[in-house]
Amino acid sequence: MAKEKPRTLSGFMELLPAPQQQMEQLFSILRDTYALYGFTPLDTPVIESSQVLLAKAGGETEKQIYRFLKGDNDLSLRFDLTVPLAKYVALHYADLSFPFRRFQIGKVYRGERPQRGRFRELYQADIDIIGDGKLDIINEAEIPSIIYQTFTRMGLRRFRIQVNNRKILSGFYETLGLSEQAGEIMRIVDKLAKIGAAKVRELLTAPEVGLSETQADAVLAFISIQGSNTQVLSALEDYRGRSSLMDEGLDELNTVVHYLSAFGVPEEHFAVDLTIARGLDYYTGTVYETLMLDHPEIGSICSGGRYDNLAAYYTDKQLPGVGISIGVTRLFYVLNEQGLLNPELPTAPADVLVLPMTEDLAPAITFATQLRQAGIRAQLYTEAKKFKAKMSYADKLRIPFVAFLGEDEVQKQAVSIKNMADGAQETLPAAQAIAHIQAALATCRELPLIREH
Amino acid sequence: MAKEKPRTLSGFMELLPAPQQQMEQLFSILRDTYALYGFTPLDTPVIESSQVLLAKAGGETEKQIYRFLKGDNDLSLRFDLTVPLAKYVALHYADLSFPFRRFQIGKVYRGERPQRGRFRELYQADIDIIGDGKLDIINEAEIPSIIYQTFTRMGLRRFRIQVNNRKILSGFYETLGLSEQAGEIMRIVDKLAKIGAAKVRELLTAPEVGLSETQADAVLAFISIQGSNTQVLSALEDYRGRSSLMDEGLDELNTVVHYLSAFGVPEEHFAVDLTIARGLDYYTGTVYETLMLDHPEIGSICSGGRYDNLAAYYTDKQLPGVGISIGVTRLFYVLNEQGLLNPELPTAPADVLVLPMTEDLAPAITFATQLRQAGIRAQLYTEAKKFKAKMSYADKLRIPFVAFLGEDEVQKQAVSIKNMADGAQETLPAAQAIAHIQAALATCRELPLIREH
Repeated sequence: MAKEKPRTLSGFMELLPAPQQQMEQLFSILRDTYALYGFTPLDTPVIESSQVLLAKAGGETEKQIYRFLKGDNDLSLRFDLTVPLAKYVALHYADLSFPFRRFQIGKVYRGERPQRGRFRELYQADIDIIGDGKLDIINEAEIPSIIYQTFTRMGLRRFRIQVNNRKILSGFYETLGLSEQAGEIMRIVDKLAKIGAAKVRELLTAPEVGLSETQADAVLAFISIQGSNTQVLSALEDYRGRSSLMDEGLDELNTVVHYLSAFGVPEEHFAVDLTIARGLDYYTGTVYETLMLDHPEIGSICSGGRYDNLAAYYTDKQLPGVGISIGVTRLFYVLNEQGLLNPELPTAPADVLVLPMTEDLAPAITFATQLRQAGIRAQLYTEAKKFKAKMSYADKLRIPFVAFLGEDEVQKQAVSIKNMADGAQETLPAAQAIAHIQAALATCRELPLIREH
Repeated sequence: MAKEKPRTLSGFMELLPAPQQQMEQLFSILRDTYALYGFTPLDTPVIESSQVLLAKAGGETEKQIYRFLKGDNDLSLRFDLTVPLAKYVALHYADLSFPFRRFQIGKVYRGERPQRGRFRELYQADIDIIGDGKLDIINEAEIPSIIYQTFTRMGLRRFRIQVNNRKILSGFYETLGLSEQAGEIMRIVDKLAKIGAAKVRELLTAPEVGLSETQADAVLAFISIQGSNTQVLSALEDYRGRSSLMDEGLDELNTVVHYLSAFGVPEEHFAVDLTIARGLDYYTGTVYETLMLDHPEIGSICSGGRYDNLAAYYTDKQLPGVGISIGVTRLFYVLNEQGLLNPELPTAPADVLVLPMTEDLAPAITFATQLRQAGIRAQLYTEAKKFKAKMSYADKLRIPFVAFLGEDEVQKQAVSIKNMADGAQETLPAAQAIAHIQAALATCRELPLIREH
């Protein structure tokens, strides 16, 4: 028969079993951490009506979107989890209680040009808190603590959450008479760390943006406010009284920083940074980015912020919210590329490989069942292979224990357990063998997913 | 602004938060149970090249498939998890160890005509064991024990796994000289329970199928073999010696049944049933169906079987396997429709709603952090609402505990805990309050997902 060459589309992540186990660990940490903060899991369709999904884009096709006809239906694959959330909240408004806190981990689709580290099918892991009409500022203070917990539980230590407030920025540019150019200025300022102050000034005063020398000075003075959070907040006090919007932003930022230690976020994992802004239209208050300190080139691994109106395209209800998103597929790719995934972390499909060595398989089957009842993952291996091949199978898959049940063991109602890491072997009654394995596995379960160099 | 009416496409399941929590419980049981048997989790893209995905269909578009062009690429959404597995194993053959045991839980897409209980986007939960060249019969005996464990852990009791062997059927029809009509006969025989023996005979002897009276008698005698597994197996011994294929099937069926009790499957959950066959081409040995005894009209909730060649379209390697699939979306729909989802099961987004009643929120924030450190899901509620509205929020979401931290409590370094189920309220030191909540939650965690009437 003619064969079709098997292949996976470029830009689509398809992992081998061992890295997939690591990825599952990542998902499990995300689910557990988000749930601890009272977020409820949601799942929405991957396919939506184009008219609904692209309402914001005015029905125009955007190049990156996977859009197609099925029969008469104009369909699109979701490109983020925010638009589906907006639709969900508008559609099910009457059935929800507010503040509505949801998390969603799911695949989204973007037809980007294929290049290393860019994916067309990617997992995002989002949390959002949606208010009905109003939403308390404390929610904006809680978000950094969730980011902190999430990455800490993964085992990451060298990271910093950067926070700013869009009201401060908008207010500041308003006082300079630069409200119209604010978007462009923020995009230039955002490059400060990469290109330096001199280049930023050059871009700001170029004819396309058109800032005067005085305006450029003011912008550069503002974004050069640095130091500890206390220092930055104190320097910002000098700007008070010029714009009510800026004052409001200053109050919010003070509140967010004030509650940080109560929320358990250590000072070294958190910094007020006046250069970050996140997109232009959507965010209206606190904004967040998260940097890996040893890999700033990667950009933010968790971003988000406060917005005033989630679902303006679907409903007249005012639905303010605050949310963050982790690009899980890209994060996993980066962690793997940088060698940060803990090589000690178990990736085997089973904890014990059970090898029957007698004609009657019943004793081995019974032992495998007992292992599973004790919560131990057990695989029964019954293929007609040489002993060496069986051991090599356990070895390749990094299965930590092999259990033998030969005539001797069956007669003694015992089992021989080989620890594949150190080669130690002992023959024990079944219950003791299970306790022995359980104790050894418990230590592995404490290992972090990420191990920094 | 003109609003776009929010809607979800018909045939796409989108659950409210409480049923979504039940669905997550279902996923969690599936993941945990499959993992206990040594299956490794896999994830493959939802989108594949049409040429690869539809290799079996000879590249022809099948009506149900979501197929579209993106640029020059002819793409399709996967319609099951078996074809992607075949591609995966053929593509990554050199990196896998055999037997390769994987589970996959993911969405698949079928553009069926929309009707009640039919879905276009549906979750499947599959396990397969793939051998390289050979695969031991014991794997076929293990599968019913996995089905048994999976549904038992969900809390289902009234179910039966039905088993047959395709070699017995093929051998039997071969002895009657009916190999060519075997497919059609099996499809008719499959309806026995629904239409009765007389109607089956009528269809078999109709000109389109064309069985003689003698042949029809033989078929009806064969499929009327019923009783306990021992009785059925014993009756089948009368057929031995007529066809080597049938004899092989009899040996296999005897082995599967023989090891059932060792694998821990109670007799009442398992029945040899000579009428079931599952599709025609794919399966070659043991086949499985699973019936809900009180809802036979639903059809099989978990099906599968043994096949000789997983990836014939992609590789010359002989890759025999055995697998089963659960249609999770449909199962969930049916359980919900039949009122079988346990109403006692917790569906709240949080275990505790923490209500600060003082100006300074720090004590409440600290208590929420302590709860989370103890693994208790806590939501801090800081919205400016009346006390009654806050209690009603907890009530609507079925959050089991509310914690108050007023001046009194803060001064005493205590917290007041209200049990929302019985209204009992007590003021305790934080550590004691946490222990109290933990004990109460532990009992809820034992509740089964399914509660039969």
